[in-house]
Amino acid sequence: MSSVNQIYIAVLGAGGVGRHFLSQLSVLSHKFPNISLVLISRSTKSLRASHRTTPLSLETWEKDLNESTSPALTVTQTLKFLGELPDKRVLVDNTSSQDVADSYPAFLKQGISVVTPNKKAFSSTMDLWTSIQESSYRPYAPYLSYGLMYHESSVGAGLPIISTLTDLIATGDTVRRIEGVFSGTLSYLFNNFAPADGSAKGGTWSDEVRKAKEAGFTEPDPRDDLNGVDVARKLVILARMVGVPVEGTGSFPVQSLIPAELERVGSAEAFMERLGEFDKRMDEVRNEAVREGKVVRFVGRVDVEAKALKVGLEKLDKAHPIAGLEGSDNIVSFYTERYVDNPLVVRGAGAGGAVTAMGVTADLIKVIQRVS
Amino acid sequence: MSSVNQIYIAVLGAGGVGRHFLSQLSVLSHKFPNISLVLISRSTKSLRASHRTTPLSLETWEKDLNESTSPALTVTQTLKFLGELPDKRVLVDNTSSQDVADSYPAFLKQGISVVTPNKKAFSSTMDLWTSIQESSYRPYAPYLSYGLMYHESSVGAGLPIISTLTDLIATGDTVRRIEGVFSGTLSYLFNNFAPADGSAKGGTWSDEVRKAKEAGFTEPDPRDDLNGVDVARKLVILARMVGVPVEGTGSFPVQSLIPAELERVGSAEAFMERLGEFDKRMDEVRNEAVREGKVVRFVGRVDVEAKALKVGLEKLDKAHPIAGLEGSDNIVSFYTERYVDNPLVVRGAGAGGAVTAMGVTADLIKVIQRVS
Repeated sequence: MSSVNQIYIAVLGAGGVGRHFLSQLSVLSHKFPNISLVLISRSTKSLRASHRTTPLSLETWEKDLNESTSPALTVTQTLKFLGELPDKRVLVDNTSSQDVADSYPAFLKQGISVVTPNKKAFSSTMDLWTSIQESSYRPYAPYLSYGLMYHESSVGAGLPIISTLTDLIATGDTVRRIEGVFSGTLSYLFNNFAPADGSAKGGTWSDEVRKAKEAGFTEPDPRDDLNGVDVARKLVILARMVGVPVEGTGSFPVQSLIPAELERVGSAEAFMERLGEFDKRMDEVRNEAVREGKVVRFVGRVDVEAKALKVGLEKLDKAHPIAGLEGSDNIVSFYTERYVDNPLVVRGAGAGGAVTAMGVTADLIKVIQRVS
Repeated sequence: MSSVNQIYIAVLGAGGVGRHFLSQLSVLSHKFPNISLVLISRSTKSLRASHRTTPLSLETWEKDLNESTSPALTVTQTLKFLGELPDKRVLVDNTSSQDVADSYPAFLKQGISVVTPNKKAFSSTMDLWTSIQESSYRPYAPYLSYGLMYHESSVGAGLPIISTLTDLIATGDTVRRIEGVFSGTLSYLFNNFAPADGSAKGGTWSDEVRKAKEAGFTEPDPRDDLNGVDVARKLVILARMVGVPVEGTGSFPVQSLIPAELERVGSAEAFMERLGEFDKRMDEVRNEAVREGKVVRFVGRVDVEAKALKVGLEKLDKAHPIAGLEGSDNIVSFYTERYVDNPLVVRGAGAGGAVTAMGVTADLIKVIQRVS
């Protein structure tokens, strides 16, 4: 494990995304035998490889982790553990922890590359964003030993959103406008509540939310989808990449679909029980769109020139690409100087363990290719 | 120019794509001051940097090339010239030359990376394809000094098609089916000839071809678009990437839109003059689709399991994503094990100098990041 060509990988989080990632890593390790998995840590347990002996098994990690008696590692412990290993280390953060996100600059400055779907690092304060930019490797930056930072799955899961925007910018294009549907849950809800083909009207709003919850398409508490914050976080990430220094999700209009009366209701169950009382409001929104020959969708927009972000309900022509979405698909359209008549559009599943892990694994491959 | 960190770049072709690429390279050189442009060669002239002195100017290259009295370099001369430079060399082939494509293995084996939009290298014989694969760098291959090979713009110009397919495969997804519209010219022709919104019927076929030709959307001889070979080449590239060893564009059904009677007509002008005689055929195709409530489009398909490729006219539902294309957009849908309900879709301008050059420049950045 001490060969200079070894790449040491620590994985935080072993739930939906983490499990899929480790399965993809197992496939990858046949192509890159220099990969050494040295740490898996989840909420209650952790598993560490003994330094300079053998890496963790990608075949039996789940059983080994379950049998482990070591508690989860703190961020400080993780940093110390990786810091003691020789060069070429990667932290794969499959959590959504703000604590871990806050520590990226510390990892990067130690030359540890970071790969993550965790939105928090890029959508919290501008200070953290700036600190991450300054701590990650750039050509001809003062500190050439800094780690690489990749986060494809922080927007649209495995869809090529971040990489495409990165390429547009790096090759000198000017992005004028970004628009899209950034939440698989809200896509699913509106595609069913107000189908574009007019074949069916869709049920009441509370029925659709209930069906989506039962099908596993929402967070355990659907208010975590309906408040629009997840979409706002993704917009902040894209906006900052194109140079709009937005301070956070609180600094632009984000429409919440939670009735104000239900914001303080205690449990998710109590919320679901009372949601039907407010169906009339969403019905009016739907009917108004129908009267105009349109459909209602939950859209996020970045207007780069005006430095303006916006998240909320919009009425769209039925021929609009957003109106024609299906299932829980995301769609992102980049309007640029080069893609001027029609945008560059990426569309497909934007949530789920396998596709989110795919973005993480693809990022890891890029790190391996660059540090090998 | 002899620093170990220098990256020497030779550019073949200085027409539509080449000119845009050199303009993007100029922007890039501010971020990567270790880039040295050492050769530009076009059909009749070439410009070389003196070894170990100063690189060519990215500001005045066009004037300098026009004033040059050196003839174009042969492939052998180009290989010798780059071979004499120290490590870290990139050949950027912006031509569509089969000769140059045939020589990629020789460049790669000398450790020279190749970046290109040239379809010929990847859609000619399987022998050339195999030779390029075996000559380009792979981790743990026997020859670690081989060059890197990137060709994003060989399909869909700057759209992230090749990189997305590469990521899907590398992360362990199984691609089942690829379908799309792969020709900007044929997209434009059919979007106008048979609009999906039914608002206008479109003109006669020969009128639409004439309009497209006058607007600069076709090759000088429109038969080079109408024969379907360009689409077939792109399908061959994608099919081989997913492991379908198709021998070439002649080994699967490719529908030509050139009336058999006009195949041997001498000039493009004579062809255009007589095309109207055959409008009735395309009119019947359009009417048949209309009767079925559909629209006609020129589609390419790869069925991975059946190892079957197909290029030609298809009747599609008006709600199909292909039917809703606009302008000269390309669209590519990947149906995979992970993107199973709905495909991963990429859409946008698939032709034009600036967007084609963008794919080349983005590839070059990846090479620079990996060899730096």
